[in-house]
Amino acid sequence: MNVTIHPQRLLEDLRQLATFGRAGPDDHPGIHRPSLSPQDMTSRHWLVERMTDAGLDARIDGIGNVVGRSKHLGPALLIGSHTDSQPRGGWLDGSLGVVYGLEIVRALHESQPSLNLPIDVVSFIDEEGTFIGSLGSLSFCNQITSLEVGDATNQQTGQPLNEAITEAGLLGIDLTRLEPDRHMAYLEAHIEQGNILESEGSRIGVVSTIVGIRNFDIRFEGKVNHAGTTPMNLRKDAGSSLINFAYELNKTLQPIAGPNTVWTIGRVNFDPGATSVIPGHADLTLQFRDPALEVLDRFERQVEELVATANRTGPVHVSLHPSSAIKPSAMDKNLQNHLVAAAQIHAPGAWKHMPSAAGHDAMTLADQLPCAMLFVPSIGGISHDYAEDTKEADIILGCEILATAAASILQSTSRLKR
Amino acid sequence: MNVTIHPQRLLEDLRQLATFGRAGPDDHPGIHRPSLSPQDMTSRHWLVERMTDAGLDARIDGIGNVVGRSKHLGPALLIGSHTDSQPRGGWLDGSLGVVYGLEIVRALHESQPSLNLPIDVVSFIDEEGTFIGSLGSLSFCNQITSLEVGDATNQQTGQPLNEAITEAGLLGIDLTRLEPDRHMAYLEAHIEQGNILESEGSRIGVVSTIVGIRNFDIRFEGKVNHAGTTPMNLRKDAGSSLINFAYELNKTLQPIAGPNTVWTIGRVNFDPGATSVIPGHADLTLQFRDPALEVLDRFERQVEELVATANRTGPVHVSLHPSSAIKPSAMDKNLQNHLVAAAQIHAPGAWKHMPSAAGHDAMTLADQLPCAMLFVPSIGGISHDYAEDTKEADIILGCEILATAAASILQSTSRLKR
Repeated sequence: MNVTIHPQRLLEDLRQLATFGRAGPDDHPGIHRPSLSPQDMTSRHWLVERMTDAGLDARIDGIGNVVGRSKHLGPALLIGSHTDSQPRGGWLDGSLGVVYGLEIVRALHESQPSLNLPIDVVSFIDEEGTFIGSLGSLSFCNQITSLEVGDATNQQTGQPLNEAITEAGLLGIDLTRLEPDRHMAYLEAHIEQGNILESEGSRIGVVSTIVGIRNFDIRFEGKVNHAGTTPMNLRKDAGSSLINFAYELNKTLQPIAGPNTVWTIGRVNFDPGATSVIPGHADLTLQFRDPALEVLDRFERQVEELVATANRTGPVHVSLHPSSAIKPSAMDKNLQNHLVAAAQIHAPGAWKHMPSAAGHDAMTLADQLPCAMLFVPSIGGISHDYAEDTKEADIILGCEILATAAASILQSTSRLKR
Repeated sequence: MNVTIHPQRLLEDLRQLATFGRAGPDDHPGIHRPSLSPQDMTSRHWLVERMTDAGLDARIDGIGNVVGRSKHLGPALLIGSHTDSQPRGGWLDGSLGVVYGLEIVRALHESQPSLNLPIDVVSFIDEEGTFIGSLGSLSFCNQITSLEVGDATNQQTGQPLNEAITEAGLLGIDLTRLEPDRHMAYLEAHIEQGNILESEGSRIGVVSTIVGIRNFDIRFEGKVNHAGTTPMNLRKDAGSSLINFAYELNKTLQPIAGPNTVWTIGRVNFDPGATSVIPGHADLTLQFRDPALEVLDRFERQVEELVATANRTGPVHVSLHPSSAIKPSAMDKNLQNHLVAAAQIHAPGAWKHMPSAAGHDAMTLADQLPCAMLFVPSIGGISHDYAEDTKEADIILGCEILATAAASILQSTSRLKR
């Protein structure tokens, strides 16, 4: 079925949305729109209006999620992402996927054969973790308790989440939940946030899996001492031990990595951290990501072995502290096939299957219903920065592909129903 | 000549001095006595009294140095060290060398043959660098300008040095300078601050050289990026580059080190320093120390070569920034021989020649006149800590050796004069 989106309407809505929290320099349309901030709430009220204009029953729920519900009978397709931003973030990011949903609803309603296809649109709150990462999708899937919400604070300002909810005017409003009998699948479009598509000349990514992530703190306990009067052979230098460990880590992880594995030592600390003092303590953060559970397990075993070896050789004690883990989320094969078919219509040969190396709301929803994700290229691979951008032609192409796929998914379901 | 010191008087003066700024726990006599603090000034007034009682013309000069001048004609031997402490420091440190000077003056005056041997005693201000490291000895040797003094501030509190001088009641008092016609040599006793003497079963160290020190900042400029979406082969990871560099550094410096070389990476920073962000910038501090200029030069060339190699291989740019350098200070051979002869009398076979791996006021004075230093063992090698201590027997032995050496130096000079 042919679905015709309106490119100018799509771009104008994206630009209008980017006026809320507009903060970047003149040559970049960047935004600063942390979740539940006044700018974020203004954008959510605007989004409710736009959804209502598109014929949806739209509201902001008690946690801040904006859900626009189709008046047509289900099973409905859920399309969306998030409209909150990182501090000093980009104008598209998750907003792209939300406005795609809005435009696809409008486009379907404007064409006779797709007039009654039910699409619900969602903008989840706080995917970026101003308070709790993926808060909105966790709430939507009933995977977070009011106790956890009560404990959460703004990671920048320390403001309690419940206070921010009250200030946002959301106190006492009920929560909108996933409806298992209604919601047949979830589609999320997002900017890639890397430069794989750009560097390979592809214009669309069909996500196969959202990678699993494991985070560790690795701590080194030596003995603080005077950097002049302590001979090399009498030292228990936690800093040198960390350097040797990190070097061995990089060397031994490389050959056991998969094609999509990434690992990062993002933070290192030497204590007390003075020029003339041998570090008594040191620590680092290690993170690795891969679409495959077996690769994550293999990496973790290798790290454990290196820790054991370091403790056998001494003289510094090393300990491994897992801090958080997210398992890989496979995207639904059938939904991927619909996306591939649509990509092949609009951009033959210019799309590719790829894992998502960043986390998304689809990760939360994938436990509950079939999910799929579509990526558009990020210019220079830049994201979470005012300089984040995507070519207009790619923005439009992404929406055309998602619209075609959404219609074909809904049609195949209604055929099944008959 | 036999000089008899009074051990109890020596220990009582050291204990009395440690009551000013007493701050350690009950089982350690530690002190907190930063230079020019009220506690430090009280201790200096006490010291002036003690010196006066010992027959010296004593005063506090305009920068805070306490100088007790012998009433006898020169050439005089200058003996001393410093009585200011590190924050939360030890009770002996430099105080040991100052009270040794005081006790030696008293002991010499009590014995007929040494009655007229002239010894001046000094406690330099701010060796520990609350404002400017070795401020007192630099002022005494006329190696610091009033402009430099005017610019200096307390490195903890930010208080200007000139304000602290005024508060200490020293405004307008003239400065006491080294008198080249009078001062024939400088002797400084100090705790070792390491555990070489203790670990080798020696009780006295005769210092051969005060090591040279070179400090560098080494900076790594890569590209900050998302730790999930940036594949390993597209990264410019400043943190990984730092780790590789530091590893190679430790590996290649080891075989070219001398027996006394030490080197330390004391501080490391990854920027922005977040778990999920590839570091765009990173830096480390490198310090190395050695008694020999050629070893310091060899080390510096090796570091320069590693920087050049790292920049040839990329992808991160590395730059080397020398931040400060102190050249090695050789102690006078003749004075060392006097110390050795005295050590051989009081502790035959239980002394050793050794470099000083920490800086001392003798470093400043060595440019102006012959200098020598004597070390007593530090229990457990601990210094700059409340737990710093030295066995009583070793404290007494050190003073006996320094007294014998001082008398023999002065006698050999007066023989030369005849």
